[in-house]
Amino acid sequence: TSNIHLISRAMRQRFVIPDFTNFCRDIEAIYWHCKSSAGGKVASYIPQLARYDPNFWGVSVCTVDGQRYCIGDVTVPFTVQSISKPLTYGLVLDELGEDMVHQYVGQEPSGRMFNELVLDHNKKPHNPMINAGAIIVCSLLQTLAHKEMNLAERFDHVKQYFSRLAGDEYVGFNNAVFLSEREAADRNYALGFYMRENKCFPTKSNLREVMDFYFQCCAMETTCDAMSVMAATLANGGICPTSEEKVMSTDSVRDVLSLMHSCGMYDYSGQFAFNVGLPAKSGVSGGMMLVVPNVMGICLWSPPLDMYGNSVRGIQFCSELVNMFNFHRYDNLKYSTDKKDP
Amino acid sequence: TSNIHLISRAMRQRFVIPDFTNFCRDIEAIYWHCKSSAGGKVASYIPQLARYDPNFWGVSVCTVDGQRYCIGDVTVPFTVQSISKPLTYGLVLDELGEDMVHQYVGQEPSGRMFNELVLDHNKKPHNPMINAGAIIVCSLLQTLAHKEMNLAERFDHVKQYFSRLAGDEYVGFNNAVFLSEREAADRNYALGFYMRENKCFPTKSNLREVMDFYFQCCAMETTCDAMSVMAATLANGGICPTSEEKVMSTDSVRDVLSLMHSCGMYDYSGQFAFNVGLPAKSGVSGGMMLVVPNVMGICLWSPPLDMYGNSVRGIQFCSELVNMFNFHRYDNLKYSTDKKDP
Amino acid sequence: TSNIHLISRAMRQRFVIPDFTNFCRDIEAIYWHCKSSAGGKVASYIPQLARYDPNFWGVSVCTVDGQRYCIGDVTVPFTVQSISKPLTYGLVLDELGEDMVHQYVGQEPSGRMFNELVLDHNKKPHNPMINAGAIIVCSLLQTLAHKEMNLAERFDHVKQYFSRLAGDEYVGFNNAVFLSEREAADRNYALGFYMRENKCFPTKSNLREVMDFYFQCCAMETTCDAMSVMAATLANGGICPTSEEKVMSTDSVRDVLSLMHSCGMYDYSGQFAFNVGLPAKSGVSGGMMLVVPNVMGICLWSPPLDMYGNSVRGIQFCSELVNMFNFHRYDNLKYSTDKKDP
Amino acid sequence: TSNIHLISRAMRQRFVIPDFTNFCRDIEAIYWHCKSSAGGKVASYIPQLARYDPNFWGVSVCTVDGQRYCIGDVTVPFTVQSISKPLTYGLVLDELGEDMVHQYVGQEPSGRMFNELVLDHNKKPHNPMINAGAIIVCSLLQTLAHKEMNLAERFDHVKQYFSRLAGDEYVGFNNAVFLSEREAADRNYALGFYMRENKCFPTKSNLREVMDFYFQCCAMETTCDAMSVMAATLANGGICPTSEEKVMSTDSVRDVLSLMHSCGMYDYSGQFAFNVGLPAKSGVSGGMMLVVPNVMGICLWSPPLDMYGNSVRGIQFCSELVNMFNFHRYDNLKYSTDKKDP
Repeated sequence: TSNIHLISRAMRQRFVIPDFTNFCRDIEAIYWHCKSSAGGKVASYIPQLARYDPNFWGVSVCTVDGQRYCIGDVTVPFTVQSISKPLTYGLVLDELGEDMVHQYVGQEPSGRMFNELVLDHNKKPHNPMINAGAIIVCSLLQTLAHKEMNLAERFDHVKQYFSRLAGDEYVGFNNAVFLSEREAADRNYALGFYMRENKCFPTKSNLREVMDFYFQCCAMETTCDAMSVMAATLANGGICPTSEEKVMSTDSVRDVLSLMHSCGMYDYSGQFAFNVGLPAKSGVSGGMMLVVPNVMGICLWSPPLDMYGNSVRGIQFCSELVNMFNFHRYDNLKYSTDKKDP
Repeated sequence: TSNIHLISRAMRQRFVIPDFTNFCRDIEAIYWHCKSSAGGKVASYIPQLARYDPNFWGVSVCTVDGQRYCIGDVTVPFTVQSISKPLTYGLVLDELGEDMVHQYVGQEPSGRMFNELVLDHNKKPHNPMINAGAIIVCSLLQTLAHKEMNLAERFDHVKQYFSRLAGDEYVGFNNAVFLSEREAADRNYALGFYMRENKCFPTKSNLREVMDFYFQCCAMETTCDAMSVMAATLANGGICPTSEEKVMSTDSVRDVLSLMHSCGMYDYSGQFAFNVGLPAKSGVSGGMMLVVPNVMGICLWSPPLDMYGNSVRGIQFCSELVNMFNFHRYDNLKYSTDKKDP
Repeated sequence: TSNIHLISRAMRQRFVIPDFTNFCRDIEAIYWHCKSSAGGKVASYIPQLARYDPNFWGVSVCTVDGQRYCIGDVTVPFTVQSISKPLTYGLVLDELGEDMVHQYVGQEPSGRMFNELVLDHNKKPHNPMINAGAIIVCSLLQTLAHKEMNLAERFDHVKQYFSRLAGDEYVGFNNAVFLSEREAADRNYALGFYMRENKCFPTKSNLREVMDFYFQCCAMETTCDAMSVMAATLANGGICPTSEEKVMSTDSVRDVLSLMHSCGMYDYSGQFAFNVGLPAKSGVSGGMMLVVPNVMGICLWSPPLDMYGNSVRGIQFCSELVNMFNFHRYDNLKYSTDKKDP
Repeated sequence: TSNIHLISRAMRQRFVIPDFTNFCRDIEAIYWHCKSSAGGKVASYIPQLARYDPNFWGVSVCTVDGQRYCIGDVTVPFTVQSISKPLTYGLVLDELGEDMVHQYVGQEPSGRMFNELVLDHNKKPHNPMINAGAIIVCSLLQTLAHKEMNLAERFDHVKQYFSRLAGDEYVGFNNAVFLSEREAADRNYALGFYMRENKCFPTKSNLREVMDFYFQCCAMETTCDAMSVMAATLANGGICPTSEEKVMSTDSVRDVLSLMHSCGMYDYSGQFAFNVGLPAKSGVSGGMMLVVPNVMGICLWSPPLDMYGNSVRGIQFCSELVNMFNFHRYDNLKYSTDKKDP
């Protein structure tokens, strides 16, 4: 059916990127441009991440009407790490609703110099894109949503949600990464205990189980190709462009993209919002999920990280992308004469 | 010519809001809904502001193709106060360029709990939407742009810029407000001296003159109607929709809207970005400039303020507006079935 | 021998408090005065503490030449809690020396509003009188001092040190308190993990063992009488006035008293130093150890606590004591005509 | 009379330092030891300070019974700068009483990392030894004490108080320093305006006059010799040992010494209290006033400053002094066998 849908659209010449061939040529040019960048350091706090070849570099594009393009290492599995945060946030919004969720976690940037260990003035983590907030999201999924599920079922539930966002493309689990990260998680345990002291968790939360669940979400594995479909699902208001399944509610997507916009790129978030103006989320494995709302999802993957923990090639790609195309939120559609409207 | 332009468009039925009549009916309904709100307190730190009737309430709309609608107290002059900040920021970007300007002022939210007196980790004010940053912008305008101008010429220069943004509708100056605010400005003088100690100003800045200039910008006066045109100019990429003059460069507009989005509503900015998802700037006189990029500018004015210093009716209006229309940045254009696409 | 020593001194009329009878009469008057104070709340975070009768109130005095006085509930055992901090700090100074110890922990007040979770600018806990610093002291005792000891031997080692400070008067261990506190210790575990992340511990530290050791030190039990001897040992430069044993080195005593002076009374430390001007340490069980250097040690015990966590009657007693006698560090010995020189 | 007093004491061999000759020999040894230290930088923010020869080095001692010793540059005038803070604090305590004064200024260290611009949690400056607190002290002297005085009389009143503390030895005024510092005082003006915004001043304060008065106090001039008498007056409970005049009340002296102990050495105060354990106050001109309570006052002067703003040679002198003599507050008088009891 998807094919028919594509063909039908193609016949009517109504794709969101009318001249996709030329657009891909531009993407490829940026890809090669970034490929030669040598900076950054591969994350090394656990051996499983440290072993990644710094030369890996993949770019996958999926438009909201399902056109695909990819180049480079787009089928090599990597763990999603912090890119799980907007996805579990979307899931918990779907299941519990915005009001319930935001009783437990804020919705604002924390400010760059703000020590991560400090909660906001309501004694809540600042937002679900930082570790503290994502741990709370996991506790909500465990305690308030689907209480009937046991640990295994809940893990499967999340994994299937990620799969559905990816149109059933590859989503796996890297147990070695999970076990290693659980061992190397002093900061996260400190956060967990500090939040428990401050009564941040819903009652009946079991801290050990919540932490395990959090590390499991981070250790989900996917590929550049699959993640570009996830991004496209977000760009498309929650409907997967390849499977045409409604996976995330439109309201949840709005909230997810709002917080990716303001808080998705660690301490570089403010500058990224200013320079690139698109919602994105990066992870310590070098992955990066970029959303051009109503147009396309893009996944970038390259392990070397900059001082903020964002993929060096990923950041460069975004920067060159918005210089070339009118994708910045506040580019003017009519008068930005220097930029292409693809 | 503007009329011909409008008529020509009207003939072709190509307005950005095709059914403007129905849209205005909805705006009017929200207007009356907000009119009955009684909360908030009129700013009282100077008598000139304290005297405003809390019942004043005006809404003016101007689309990027120049369609206008207004209701309520839309021709009563009020001082722009902090709404001058995005305008002077736009001017200095036009004159000195982004790179030069951001050597002196940052581009990120400061974080809600962050004491305003503290500079960011580069010893710069966090962004041009807070007082410290706007004072720096004034010093750049005085010291680096148009060095040949004397004080009077520079004042006129800014006032004319505001006028051009407003398509030559009313922009005045309220000298009593200027004089009063200069007297009641301990916080701003503290900021000024603290920044001078930290060498935040360009060399040759004269602190007294900079402060005077800053207070003068805040004491510029306009009306709801005129300010809706300014907002529409920003929505339209810097081209005034009524005069069709290119006033602000497209790049400057992008930067201005980016920072209005993340930092325009005082300590409520993060929540506003999450809930409303549109660039806006409020002032202590109860004015509020709201931009729907590529679509329209809106000015809201009502003196009673909430605890953050934003107009109570203005905030309520924005909230109801995005509940009704798909204007939130991250509303999906195709699948937001509950919301109108005007 | 001690008796002979006392008798000999008595014969020579050379006691540090020449007229001890009158001095005790004054102490008794203050005791009864404080007894009627009804404010404060007994600590309730674990049931073992919550059960203490708020009417308990005991005062014990021991001079550096071994004269004793006590009144009230001076033989009821209570856990030392934070009063263990100066004692384990003294022990670790004795065993590792000041230089080694202060590579791991600072020696300054943290400032009242400073969030306890934050380390100082050298990434060390501010001082050994706060939880973070005392946990570090425990890790030093475990890892660097007497490495040959196993857990049981090390526990005994500390317990015997406390006993020797008390001239072999009662020092016990309350296992129920230990087990309860270990359960109710989110803040302390957060501190532990946060410090491990920041590499505050010596290598080879085992966090669980360190935390257990810390809670065991806090759960040591003693009486008002015994603790007044500990205080007198500190007042006497480390030589126990009853056993005449040299327990703590003179240099260690100086460091312990310095930090009790500036940091011993939680967030009230600054005001206590200003008003009372004597080194002291309080614990959440309502105990308080007060040192008049070169003169005497005093133990005060009464469970109800003020908002800072200090014993209400204990604080009142200290305040009345320095109003009556010239014990404040900066009382003038010659010209303080209003105060008694006992 | 003073001579008779001295002779009478000498006859009875009851001096506080019985063997003054040997004591002075030790002081001289330390003097020469410090003389060879070459580190530190002379303050350069105003030319009047920058011109001081870095080789200046003077030490003056005055015991509470009036014995004197001095060596080096002890008669060269220098401005007191921050050493005025404990003196004006003592004056305001004498005139208004502790309760009134501490309604406006706190009495605790601010914590080393605490930004100086921030007030404490009661919206008061942390203590009178920091600039903010000393400015408040000046405002209290201007507004609440001796309201009948005009500006000139008030200046004279303070200058005479300083003179009386110094037993009428040299106290002058350096007008060039006053004028320069007033010009170079961005931080202080920022503090002043920030405090005025926070309503820290008593009503009727005139900020300009307060600031002028503060700078005038800092620009008072004295010599090492004269300042050692001031220190001795503090050591002697407020009675000048040379003039035998009661200048400062005993209660005021206690408060002054308490805050010099905890807050007198800028950001090094905590470490100084730990290492040296004596009340002291330093100034940016390289002066340092050290008090051994009930024993003596010492003045040290040498312009080169360390990173904290304290005299390099002054700090070294104090450190060597307490290593040799049992002057540290928490040295044991009986058992400190390594140290001399002079």
